[in-house]
Amino acid sequence: MEIQQYMQTLGQQARKASRAMARATTGIKNQALLNIAAQIEESREVLKQANAKDMARGEENGLDAALLDRLELTDGRIDTMLEGLRQVAGLADPVGGITDLNYRPSGIQVGKMRVPLGVIGIIYESRPNVTIEAASLCLKSGNATILRGGSEAIESNQALAACIAKGLEDAGLPSQAVQVIETTDRAAVGEMITMPEYVDVIVPRGGKGLIERISRDAKVPVIKHLDGICHVYIDNDADLAKATNIAINSKTHRYGTCNTMETLLVHQDIAEKILPDLASVYTSLNVELRGCEKTMAILPVAIAATAEDWDTEYLAPILAIKIVDDLDHAIEHINTHGSHHTDTIVSENYTKSRRFLLEVDSSSVMINASTRFADGFEYGLGAEIGISTDKIHARGPVGLEGLTSQKYVVLGDGEIRK
Amino acid sequence: MEIQQYMQTLGQQARKASRAMARATTGIKNQALLNIAAQIEESREVLKQANAKDMARGEENGLDAALLDRLELTDGRIDTMLEGLRQVAGLADPVGGITDLNYRPSGIQVGKMRVPLGVIGIIYESRPNVTIEAASLCLKSGNATILRGGSEAIESNQALAACIAKGLEDAGLPSQAVQVIETTDRAAVGEMITMPEYVDVIVPRGGKGLIERISRDAKVPVIKHLDGICHVYIDNDADLAKATNIAINSKTHRYGTCNTMETLLVHQDIAEKILPDLASVYTSLNVELRGCEKTMAILPVAIAATAEDWDTEYLAPILAIKIVDDLDHAIEHINTHGSHHTDTIVSENYTKSRRFLLEVDSSSVMINASTRFADGFEYGLGAEIGISTDKIHARGPVGLEGLTSQKYVVLGDGEIRK
Repeated sequence: MEIQQYMQTLGQQARKASRAMARATTGIKNQALLNIAAQIEESREVLKQANAKDMARGEENGLDAALLDRLELTDGRIDTMLEGLRQVAGLADPVGGITDLNYRPSGIQVGKMRVPLGVIGIIYESRPNVTIEAASLCLKSGNATILRGGSEAIESNQALAACIAKGLEDAGLPSQAVQVIETTDRAAVGEMITMPEYVDVIVPRGGKGLIERISRDAKVPVIKHLDGICHVYIDNDADLAKATNIAINSKTHRYGTCNTMETLLVHQDIAEKILPDLASVYTSLNVELRGCEKTMAILPVAIAATAEDWDTEYLAPILAIKIVDDLDHAIEHINTHGSHHTDTIVSENYTKSRRFLLEVDSSSVMINASTRFADGFEYGLGAEIGISTDKIHARGPVGLEGLTSQKYVVLGDGEIRK
Repeated sequence: MEIQQYMQTLGQQARKASRAMARATTGIKNQALLNIAAQIEESREVLKQANAKDMARGEENGLDAALLDRLELTDGRIDTMLEGLRQVAGLADPVGGITDLNYRPSGIQVGKMRVPLGVIGIIYESRPNVTIEAASLCLKSGNATILRGGSEAIESNQALAACIAKGLEDAGLPSQAVQVIETTDRAAVGEMITMPEYVDVIVPRGGKGLIERISRDAKVPVIKHLDGICHVYIDNDADLAKATNIAINSKTHRYGTCNTMETLLVHQDIAEKILPDLASVYTSLNVELRGCEKTMAILPVAIAATAEDWDTEYLAPILAIKIVDDLDHAIEHINTHGSHHTDTIVSENYTKSRRFLLEVDSSSVMINASTRFADGFEYGLGAEIGISTDKIHARGPVGLEGLTSQKYVVLGDGEIRK
């Protein structure tokens, strides 16, 4: 009951602050971002001390090395935060722009104005730099934010929250425009995702388990993706050099990212020509290959893929390979087994490329480019709060515009409806 | 269990048909719309016979006169359906357009392609013409649809479904692109709103109770509005003639529509000047006036408003009137008590009008125009499936574009990520 009241209070404060944020001019929002950077710069030692407490507690609690690494706030990472804040200050303000303002026969002018969403709840895990990334994007897009970081980073996040509050106040904005939840009680998340009167949208960042749980229980819209089961389809009309480069880059540029290829589809007419060379590159990079029966016949190095492989996001140096009959077979496989994230065709054929673009039902569909490009920075959004594979609201990499909505504006001169 | 299986089958068929619909060319979709019109024209007598069965059963079951009127399929209403189908065929196809296709430093071109949502579930009450309206908008926007009409209209809806199926087939599209649920079992709704694997979005049309129930239980996004508590704010810098026209039209043009004004806000400095004349017009039109204390002092005809009045959608010839201190007070009242639907300021003052436009958090915000303009046709959308007061996805009147999403498209020439 106490936690419920605490979250309700945070929600009310956020709703109130969101009104001031929606009104805030671009100049004032940018000033707040630069103020926060200045506060962090000044508080370097305080931040590192707070982080040291988190690290010590994490070690005591037996966190594994990977988690401890993500938790650590080094000078380099603080510099990256500062750079991020300055970059967001430099981005165009998405709020207030009016588009498609046209006269109607009745005499009224009708257009659409871009407006903030209101209050955004962010739920994330150990990395404390997400506190600054998320807060800066929500601030720039005119939203109020409630942040819920991992319990293992609570000291670091509270220290960062103090810098944010000071930066907002110094710019004349309400410090409650960004609130970091002060308790590690897990019930806080349950409350936050079920108060639609105070929270307009939830952005969860973290493992699939966390995101599934939140999506299931939320009474508020959730901007999310669960899996990144991305495909490269090498068509029989592919340029072999492009196909090789793209297939290698899409898998091996980084293994743990959501836009990494997990399944390679190859047209049956080109498989014998391209697969042996490709396989030797993968093998030299220690990528384990799992293939369909036809693939096994061409690549002795491959082990047999099971039905489960086609639905698996490995996030590891493992690749599933399937030989398909034709384009239809490839599209059918992607739409059935993919996660609607990012899929590429490699082909020189106009008609087949065009069909792939139209018919693959994913948030990013590519021709002759690496799946690794599916990213807010690479797309020119300037920043990214996450990637959405849902069809409602933002889809694909979500930047500042994805944190806004639109409202209709009508300019009249006394018109009434006949 | 049987109904669950039935709905799962409908869902699977809809998902499959949605792929064909997403690929369908503009010409074929338009042909299907015109085919459906031709089928309805040919089946006039069959439709009227089916409708007569619904009417007879309705009378037996003691439906009230208003419901029976909405249920009836007259020749005039059939003509309106035909006209609607032809109009939708004439609208621009929202699907496939690519916007903002720009080069990035990496060499790739990134843009956004407009795509159908997939499968749309529509839940509505007695009027059988909604079957055609909803089906035609979903068809034109490249979606598959599952329609659930009122049980009192089941015979009429099945007869219309047969026309739709024939029209689709004759155009070479899958008849399962539009499926009308054949059972009146209420459990079908519960199933439909909880199968996100087959249904992408739900559009409920009907009373507030229905929509609240659906929103609460749905595991699928819902495009909706609950209330239309719309305001007109007459500023002290208002043109009196414009203010009078707009205040009268916004309330009395139609009483039962969601964009009708329910509360009139008047600046204290202009109240004595404008309210008596306005009140006499309202009174002559038999509109009951309920006022705040200050209003009561000016208008003896008004009865005392209670706290509840400010939060009530009357849908009737009743108007709440409140005298406010200033613009801030008006905006605060609207954002607190309104339903984020449609609100108008009447003012000649630039700065105050601009602030109202920016700060009122509603799906339609107007200057010097009647709230009654908040409508898909008046806004130039060509048609309307409903009005959304949510901030996620479509907001305000929802036309064809609101039934679509976007995906990123990337055109490359073999680029890989460095």
